[in-house]
Amino acid sequence: MIDTLASRCLDGDTRAVARLISLLEDGDRKAFGTLAALKGRSGMAHVIGITGPPGSGKSTLTDKLIGDFRLRGLRVGVIAVDPSSPFSGGAILGDRLRMQGHATDPGVFIRSLASRGRLGGLSKATAFAVRALEAAGYDIVIIETVGVGQSEVDIVKVADTVVLVSVPGLGDDIQVIKAGIMEIGDIFVVNKSDRDGADRVVREIRAMLETQAMLQRGRSVDAGPDTLAARNAELLHHGQTGPIPETAPPGDGFQLAPVLKTVAETGEGVPELCKVILAGFESAKTSGALESRRRTSIKSQLKDLVAWHVMDYFADRDGDGHLDVLTERVLARELDIYTAARELFSALLKGEKR
Amino acid sequence: MIDTLASRCLDGDTRAVARLISLLEDGDRKAFGTLAALKGRSGMAHVIGITGPPGSGKSTLTDKLIGDFRLRGLRVGVIAVDPSSPFSGGAILGDRLRMQGHATDPGVFIRSLASRGRLGGLSKATAFAVRALEAAGYDIVIIETVGVGQSEVDIVKVADTVVLVSVPGLGDDIQVIKAGIMEIGDIFVVNKSDRDGADRVVREIRAMLETQAMLQRGRSVDAGPDTLAARNAELLHHGQTGPIPETAPPGDGFQLAPVLKTVAETGEGVPELCKVILAGFESAKTSGALESRRRTSIKSQLKDLVAWHVMDYFADRDGDGHLDVLTERVLARELDIYTAARELFSALLKGEKR
Repeated sequence: MIDTLASRCLDGDTRAVARLISLLEDGDRKAFGTLAALKGRSGMAHVIGITGPPGSGKSTLTDKLIGDFRLRGLRVGVIAVDPSSPFSGGAILGDRLRMQGHATDPGVFIRSLASRGRLGGLSKATAFAVRALEAAGYDIVIIETVGVGQSEVDIVKVADTVVLVSVPGLGDDIQVIKAGIMEIGDIFVVNKSDRDGADRVVREIRAMLETQAMLQRGRSVDAGPDTLAARNAELLHHGQTGPIPETAPPGDGFQLAPVLKTVAETGEGVPELCKVILAGFESAKTSGALESRRRTSIKSQLKDLVAWHVMDYFADRDGDGHLDVLTERVLARELDIYTAARELFSALLKGEKR
Repeated sequence: MIDTLASRCLDGDTRAVARLISLLEDGDRKAFGTLAALKGRSGMAHVIGITGPPGSGKSTLTDKLIGDFRLRGLRVGVIAVDPSSPFSGGAILGDRLRMQGHATDPGVFIRSLASRGRLGGLSKATAFAVRALEAAGYDIVIIETVGVGQSEVDIVKVADTVVLVSVPGLGDDIQVIKAGIMEIGDIFVVNKSDRDGADRVVREIRAMLETQAMLQRGRSVDAGPDTLAARNAELLHHGQTGPIPETAPPGDGFQLAPVLKTVAETGEGVPELCKVILAGFESAKTSGALESRRRTSIKSQLKDLVAWHVMDYFADRDGDGHLDVLTERVLARELDIYTAARELFSALLKGEKR
């Protein structure tokens, strides 16, 4: 049955895709096995993460972006992991669904990953769901998530392009939260930009980006072989002349991310955003930045997955009791938790010898 | 130097505590080693997690609670991991500091864990910082964090008592987010309850708690030996008569969590909250609920720490190149990431044989 699911996904059967994503979400091991069958299409889609605080209009923006991508003939899959998204909360937020326009379009697939009310493990489920969608031939996969914490950052890290959505007038608290995730944004959008204060938000974001770039430049100068001088020398060697300009070429992380204004409700600014998203992807493909980004992302996901196998290993060997014994010793203050964890890890390394 | 730090912590030297927490935050391995020296005081403090959306007044509430605990002669340590907290963001939010009143009180220690702008690993750093604070003799350790995502839930899971702060008028988006973390609350506070809609929020929380309890009751009925009937039989055996009342005794998870109204700005309702927090802790101590909760928490932390050791293991053996090779194979679509992770995990298990 699971094997059929994989080949039906490859045929673009949306019901199979939906079923597979459900199984992946449930942590079904056999479903994970299908990923091997889908590997040939891995990395075929352009994965776009759209994140921002609740109330920033991410969902309306996503809705409008879908329309623009469709006009270009691109098939779009959406994974909504934002509990505040109208896409995600069928039961709770059914009446707020703004997606009616795309519901009957076979080129659009929308799936929520928050319906079970569990946030844990969502980052894995999201990454796997992306694989299922690109296997089924979606050109664009949009991950929509609320941008406020580390877990959301993890979810969005699988994206090729991260769009950070801000909005005027959300107050300081929200802005400060955003500060923590500024560095993951490739494109910044100030939505609801017909409101007062939009230009101020744009200026603030630009100022933060400039500060970031300055800090990065400073860090790079201190970074041994990877100094500006070394890079200049390398560029000279490759036939370029002169020092690296202030706004450096793509791939070295120094150029400022674009900041765009939109009014998602009316669609204002959305075609420009669409253009910038696609152009950035093409340029990252050409420069090799995309490959290096995906390499980093795969490496980090691999580590997470191994850690997850470790958890699984313990879950399977609950009878073994080593974890229980160490827990009791920590509870009894005979052992500190750090030492206990080291003991468990050593036992794990020696595990197969027994 | 590190050894001195541990003994100075045990002597209650606040500068040593601050230094140790910084080292723990930085992931300093030697600092982790000091935890062994502190183990004798592990679990001595009452750890209180205070969480809620930005703008709910958590910080003002924390500030007022500190005052109440101090009146009872209790020493209070505060760990602020909330980027929107005035306690946490010295540089950004210095002007918003409301803590002047406690700054000179030697019985109060306040430390931020968000100053470095990195959210990753914060859950470990927080758990370890709690150990440092209880070693230094703080009776109460408050962890203040913004409650919106899984990482915050992880942080707050180390607490003995979790206070979930709501506020009227934050809009649907925030309320929906909260829904995801409702289940971690032991005590619910509707702050700014002088505002319109406070009673409605109280009613909504009660309704959610009742639904939750109903679901749990249903689950328990299906849970084999742990059925209501079995528990009734057990209670009868222990000398009680009649069936379990609708609001069941503490420890079986069926009684509803208290919902309190406060106005932190004026201090209204804070003494009652303080009383409820302390009374709940005493009753959990007596009933054994505290021990079983801490057992669960230790076990889950142990698993996380082992997973973290796994990450470390890979970081140390970057030269080994296995991770790099597998990453390239995934990138080249020769392997899917799930299979690659399984291979890495097997290699890890066999690691010490080589």
